[in-house]
Amino acid sequence: MSGGGTFAKLPEPPYYAVIFSSRRRAREEDGYDAMAGHLFALVQGQPGFLGAESVRGEGGFGITVAYFESEEAIAAWRRHAEHAPARERGRTEWYEGYEIRVARVERAYGWRRDP
Amino acid sequence: MSGGGTFAKLPEPPYYAVIFSSRRRAREEDGYDAMAGHLFALVQGQPGFLGAESVRGEGGFGITVAYFESEEAIAAWRRHAEHAPARERGRTEWYEGYEIRVARVERAYGWRRDP
Repeated sequence: MSGGGTFAKLPEPPYYAVIFSSRRRAREEDGYDAMAGHLFALVQGQPGFLGAESVRGEGGFGITVAYFESEEAIAAWRRHAEHAPARERGRTEWYEGYEIRVARVERAYGWRRDP
Repeated sequence: MSGGGTFAKLPEPPYYAVIFSSRRRAREEDGYDAMAGHLFALVQGQPGFLGAESVRGEGGFGITVAYFESEEAIAAWRRHAEHAPARERGRTEWYEGYEIRVARVERAYGWRRDP
């Protein structure tokens, strides 16, 4: 999943966050980027999906935070027919490991530099 | 704040997450790395701090997630005497913008490749 390195535009809390941190295996072209792009397109059409932010560092460690309206929206995305095979490829091919934390966002605030 | 690109070792939920996403200004050495390292050392001694994960991409977008036992632990860190001037330098010098979302982690699970 990719968020393009930009801020997600989200409604006022409460909503839910899926915090996905992962370490990629040190491999070159292996279909990961294509699958990440495909999943990101899919999730954007998912009911209750609000937005995502994603970044991966040079060392292969990455964090993606995907935001959803509700726990049910998260569960529906998890049940998506193309999500399970992607998770399986993640474990067999792409990741050294990952952590998933599901959280309820209670409050949020931001700041932007004046242009 | 830096997590070194490694997974945080956390207790079982519930606990709290401060999701800090930011875009750095395009500048070279400006004291940011020194301050980030200093704040990371400080927060590790903060009561109720559980761990953090952090990554910044080549484009300057970064996500740090810091985990705390409680809302009170988050508030105490926010009040830390060295934290306010760091926030101020963030706005005057280091960031194009940032978003902070405070969330209660309800559940968590992870996976590691067998060695």
